[in-house]
Amino acid sequence: MNEFRDNPAAKASASAPRQVPVIGLLPAGPRDAITDVPGVRVGHVTLADGALQTGVTVIHPHAGDPYRDKVPAASAVINGFGKSIGLVQLDELGQLETPIALTNTFSVGTVGQAQIRQALASHPEIGRGLPTVNPLVLECNDGYLNDIQQMAVSEADYRRASDGATQFVPQGSVGAGRGMSSFQMKGGIGTASRTVELTTPASGDAAESNRRYTVGALVLSNYGRLPNLIWGGDVLGPRIAAMLDAEVNAIDPEKGSIIMIIATDAPLDARQLRRLAGRAAAGLARTGSSYGHGSGDIALAFSTAYTIPHTPDRPMPAVTTVHETRIDALFQAAADSVEQAIIHALWHAEPVTGRDGQSRAPIRDVLARLDARTT
Amino acid sequence: MNEFRDNPAAKASASAPRQVPVIGLLPAGPRDAITDVPGVRVGHVTLADGALQTGVTVIHPHAGDPYRDKVPAASAVINGFGKSIGLVQLDELGQLETPIALTNTFSVGTVGQAQIRQALASHPEIGRGLPTVNPLVLECNDGYLNDIQQMAVSEADYRRASDGATQFVPQGSVGAGRGMSSFQMKGGIGTASRTVELTTPASGDAAESNRRYTVGALVLSNYGRLPNLIWGGDVLGPRIAAMLDAEVNAIDPEKGSIIMIIATDAPLDARQLRRLAGRAAAGLARTGSSYGHGSGDIALAFSTAYTIPHTPDRPMPAVTTVHETRIDALFQAAADSVEQAIIHALWHAEPVTGRDGQSRAPIRDVLARLDARTT
Amino acid sequence: MNEFRDNPAAKASASAPRQVPVIGLLPAGPRDAITDVPGVRVGHVTLADGALQTGVTVIHPHAGDPYRDKVPAASAVINGFGKSIGLVQLDELGQLETPIALTNTFSVGTVGQAQIRQALASHPEIGRGLPTVNPLVLECNDGYLNDIQQMAVSEADYRRASDGATQFVPQGSVGAGRGMSSFQMKGGIGTASRTVELTTPASGDAAESNRRYTVGALVLSNYGRLPNLIWGGDVLGPRIAAMLDAEVNAIDPEKGSIIMIIATDAPLDARQLRRLAGRAAAGLARTGSSYGHGSGDIALAFSTAYTIPHTPDRPMPAVTTVHETRIDALFQAAADSVEQAIIHALWHAEPVTGRDGQSRAPIRDVLARLDARTT
Amino acid sequence: MNEFRDNPAAKASASAPRQVPVIGLLPAGPRDAITDVPGVRVGHVTLADGALQTGVTVIHPHAGDPYRDKVPAASAVINGFGKSIGLVQLDELGQLETPIALTNTFSVGTVGQAQIRQALASHPEIGRGLPTVNPLVLECNDGYLNDIQQMAVSEADYRRASDGATQFVPQGSVGAGRGMSSFQMKGGIGTASRTVELTTPASGDAAESNRRYTVGALVLSNYGRLPNLIWGGDVLGPRIAAMLDAEVNAIDPEKGSIIMIIATDAPLDARQLRRLAGRAAAGLARTGSSYGHGSGDIALAFSTAYTIPHTPDRPMPAVTTVHETRIDALFQAAADSVEQAIIHALWHAEPVTGRDGQSRAPIRDVLARLDARTT
Repeated sequence: MNEFRDNPAAKASASAPRQVPVIGLLPAGPRDAITDVPGVRVGHVTLADGALQTGVTVIHPHAGDPYRDKVPAASAVINGFGKSIGLVQLDELGQLETPIALTNTFSVGTVGQAQIRQALASHPEIGRGLPTVNPLVLECNDGYLNDIQQMAVSEADYRRASDGATQFVPQGSVGAGRGMSSFQMKGGIGTASRTVELTTPASGDAAESNRRYTVGALVLSNYGRLPNLIWGGDVLGPRIAAMLDAEVNAIDPEKGSIIMIIATDAPLDARQLRRLAGRAAAGLARTGSSYGHGSGDIALAFSTAYTIPHTPDRPMPAVTTVHETRIDALFQAAADSVEQAIIHALWHAEPVTGRDGQSRAPIRDVLARLDARTT
Repeated sequence: MNEFRDNPAAKASASAPRQVPVIGLLPAGPRDAITDVPGVRVGHVTLADGALQTGVTVIHPHAGDPYRDKVPAASAVINGFGKSIGLVQLDELGQLETPIALTNTFSVGTVGQAQIRQALASHPEIGRGLPTVNPLVLECNDGYLNDIQQMAVSEADYRRASDGATQFVPQGSVGAGRGMSSFQMKGGIGTASRTVELTTPASGDAAESNRRYTVGALVLSNYGRLPNLIWGGDVLGPRIAAMLDAEVNAIDPEKGSIIMIIATDAPLDARQLRRLAGRAAAGLARTGSSYGHGSGDIALAFSTAYTIPHTPDRPMPAVTTVHETRIDALFQAAADSVEQAIIHALWHAEPVTGRDGQSRAPIRDVLARLDARTT
Repeated sequence: MNEFRDNPAAKASASAPRQVPVIGLLPAGPRDAITDVPGVRVGHVTLADGALQTGVTVIHPHAGDPYRDKVPAASAVINGFGKSIGLVQLDELGQLETPIALTNTFSVGTVGQAQIRQALASHPEIGRGLPTVNPLVLECNDGYLNDIQQMAVSEADYRRASDGATQFVPQGSVGAGRGMSSFQMKGGIGTASRTVELTTPASGDAAESNRRYTVGALVLSNYGRLPNLIWGGDVLGPRIAAMLDAEVNAIDPEKGSIIMIIATDAPLDARQLRRLAGRAAAGLARTGSSYGHGSGDIALAFSTAYTIPHTPDRPMPAVTTVHETRIDALFQAAADSVEQAIIHALWHAEPVTGRDGQSRAPIRDVLARLDARTT
Repeated sequence: MNEFRDNPAAKASASAPRQVPVIGLLPAGPRDAITDVPGVRVGHVTLADGALQTGVTVIHPHAGDPYRDKVPAASAVINGFGKSIGLVQLDELGQLETPIALTNTFSVGTVGQAQIRQALASHPEIGRGLPTVNPLVLECNDGYLNDIQQMAVSEADYRRASDGATQFVPQGSVGAGRGMSSFQMKGGIGTASRTVELTTPASGDAAESNRRYTVGALVLSNYGRLPNLIWGGDVLGPRIAAMLDAEVNAIDPEKGSIIMIIATDAPLDARQLRRLAGRAAAGLARTGSSYGHGSGDIALAFSTAYTIPHTPDRPMPAVTTVHETRIDALFQAAADSVEQAIIHALWHAEPVTGRDGQSRAPIRDVLARLDARTT
């Protein structure tokens, strides 16, 4: 639960600096990041030069080669106004076989080509003796701050982001998040995690035992109508909109998008991961979204609990999935991680000025003004 | 927006009686009910006798015969742990051809048979010269309060509920809502509406002009883990749970369900109605749900703007749908109506004691205790 | 492959009696029936009395209690003009928890109620301490031969069909197939099987080894426009239609339906079973269907390789699924079994005269007339 | 119906040259091509130089600008082992807003970028004042004949194919079909059409009247296991396989793909077009496919009967769709057009030798050998 909301003292003293709202009742992992799921790494390349304010972010599901050792995965298209590539095959096969790439809408093709070349570098027989590889690129439109028409992200940028991936995840106006906007303020990259204790499925003679699993989320946040903003349970949108003299028009269209990546080390199969991905919709809604027409609201979930070998020459894993009646804690963790990651994306944003001098302010600055006014 | 949250006076004075939270910024229709959509009528039959606490609720999309004049419709299965009938054909054809029936899980078959007989009464050739009819029954499990194993709802009960439908919609512990629970308190039937002004689609030489459309929702609310309750934006769940000494266990499974019916007089086709139905997920999430594993969270949307004739002998309508870039106001209205309808379902509930002396208290009583304690 | 087509002698001698066409290159199991999948049993109750020509067919996935030990399953809605119950939850959870029932369209509700009572008899806490049960009933409209408006199938009929299930499967005008029509001739129940040798997934240190798996199909065949009939690869529809002076009108609507149940002992998860179910569409198309508007063409696949315990108190299975690159043999077996089962349904049909003296002839009689003419 | 099959003389005289099988009972349009649908145009660019044997094919839905005047469309993913881009948004919005591009798997990104630039050239505000554009590129893997790793298709190639589109459609080893294989023989581009007379939907006071509509298909054929080939109803696969000494192994995996584009001038909405697209599965199955695991079997259908304006400033069309009970003729036309287009793709193929000297023979040559042997 949001401690901010539950702490009357925090509310009473408007002069105290705001802290980042904490979502829900579940504990976060040590980094409060998607990389709390063991093996997951994230890399960014940020392009920030005048009218170019964009980038690319890469998520590795494990330390190995995802083409060789595929990862169970599934997506949930909450609102399909989006130009991602790779979801058709991912949903048919329930597998991820490349790192996950996030970038701007007009760089999807370039980044997809880079992913093909990355797989070719490790597997020269792809497209000859081996099947082709399924690139996976998700995107938002950063055209407000970034001159997206320049298609500035290069294949080398993808490769650098992929190679530089670590467990430490910079947030805010970085990587693919550089040029993104949310609620008419600065959006970008955010991440969070939650842990839950589940009874480990027993198998054969083994007794069941409790084990702690992690669910982590990473979002590329570029959505949100200002009057709809709910900030850690607080309906701040109308107040900020009023302060900013922004047009508070209930029928203004949503024009952004959000990509929500969920990772877990709990043993789930692709069908269960599709259910988990769907819970991103709950976290998103609690920030005020009603999944606007023009917003590509897309979630993807994967599990690191086991991998599927590319060739049938290696043995298939024996998978003991979570009993479905115990999956609710993971659902809650997914919804909370997504909401928390969105808050982090806004909270950690730096101000950015880009194309045609257009700029977006971070919510921390806006809240400071709001609180100063209220006091 | 929730006036309760925005009214500092209301918060300041804990001794003032609580009022029902009002969701969002859009105005409600005159009844704040699904029947604000012209032509829509609702009927209930309530069975309340000892261990039998159940019933049936019927929604008519228009005053005529829905088999003869079918209504465009679509569903969104947010979480498919449910036993509804009729959705397969509804989604294939994008049409509703019976009234919509809500009842308990074990009465679905009986009510479906009643719908067949109702259609046969008007069209004796159904199943002979005419195709069969597609019954549409949605359900929740009221087994905590109701002795559901008795399968007490009869075909005559359905028929009475259908025949008695009016524009006035009793809410709370009535009809199919009689035995339902939400957040370990009393659930049931709730309804609400929102209106939006849209530019009416121009057609041919006609100039476009503004017109006000209505979106109405009716819910059968039987879901909700108490610690997750968000009440009009207020995170009350943990406080109530603490007061009630209830077990606040983050991994307790969700065991309920919710059916969310959305009606509108805006001209939408089945594809657009599927999108509209999907926005029920946003309203539901804002009450604290993460779409629990065991909860059949199902939404259905229909439009009354035009009908589709059963036989091709009568002319097909010329449909001018809302331009999709203007649909966001309807999405917002759908999400807000559903959240408001859930609040109404809890707010208007009467206490019910049923099977084995088990009982559920209304939230008003619980909030009164909570506020008395706080003061 | 169809031996009939490949046997020039058979073609040369029109006076030799026709034999049932054999589909594809894969070997059938010993019974050429769905019950070649170990554990699967089928029962029929047939009602044949004047205008009542209908029935119910029940398929048990294993010898035990499917509520206690659930079976992985998935469906494919090829054309959703149908009134089945149970598919929403089956697809969400990937599980079957009752026997599969087939009956006429207007008896779905009654049979569903019977399934609930059947589960209650074994688990008196269903709907109280235990969750509810998900009935699964699929249907076709036998209204041409049967007075469907009488809703003659009773709960007792379902129970008798369920109790009487065996490995021997009568085909043709029996059980739910009693009143069904196909291609303006007599339809009904048909079954078939195919076996394939697959490399058994290795697990841990175990070496992989070949193993033979079985795919079985059972269909309730009630679809088909006569001019479209392809009989074991032979385009017979136009010739039969010409002989019968039937109206050969290319735009005559399809009015029937077909239910296709696929069982296998290969270890597949629900996602893979959804893919397997989809291959029913290929077998169906090869008989001449283009999935007509009014035809509920629905397939369901389940695996008997493992079960999922109802309660998490018992250990979850460790499932080693077939490597997806080796699944094609199962796809082929599913398509061929379905086509073969359709041929069996027509081939084994007895002539039936029912409502208003309407009748359907078996294809054997029609082919005999056709061949006599040709000679 | 297949005249070849129905003409005993043709069978009797094996020395007579084979003719292309004709599928079904419906008449073809004047070109027997997708361009029989008024306004549809197709362009190819073919790259044929040593190890490079590939290309790009572009289909324009109408003569205008598809971003300004969008076309109703929907897809059917029959087997999702494919790397297309654009389907997520196409299915959400039911609209096509670019030409449809077909190419090899590793050129999807490049062609998608070319489509963005093409839209930008006409609408410089895309990605700034206007929303982004949704590229639509579908693909097959031509890596057997083509050195796909060279990613040889350039943006200029796309633009040339788009600019050169006409109503005349070269077939076989051209455009995107240059390097494709089917049934271990040469595949490629094929097209066909069928026409049906439907009662034109009456609207308002207008009387209904009959009108002839066209359904056209264009396929990029790269699928098919040789032993499964059914050629115009004739089960030729096993015989050809035997002749070629090819390995007739029932569990050999399918490794290809097929893209099936369906156009019609009948007034259908996106939901109906999704149904129409699904009928491609029937035509495909009748050539012997069971939708192999590794085959991206994807269909897309669009209607030219009306367009949807990009901006709401222009009036929305008043759409009077075909009454669904009359849609079967269109379903049949779609299935037959797809089967016929596949036959045309093989029939019109030229032999191609490409990467590493690998080559594919056309079916005409193979059939000539087969027939010479048989005689």
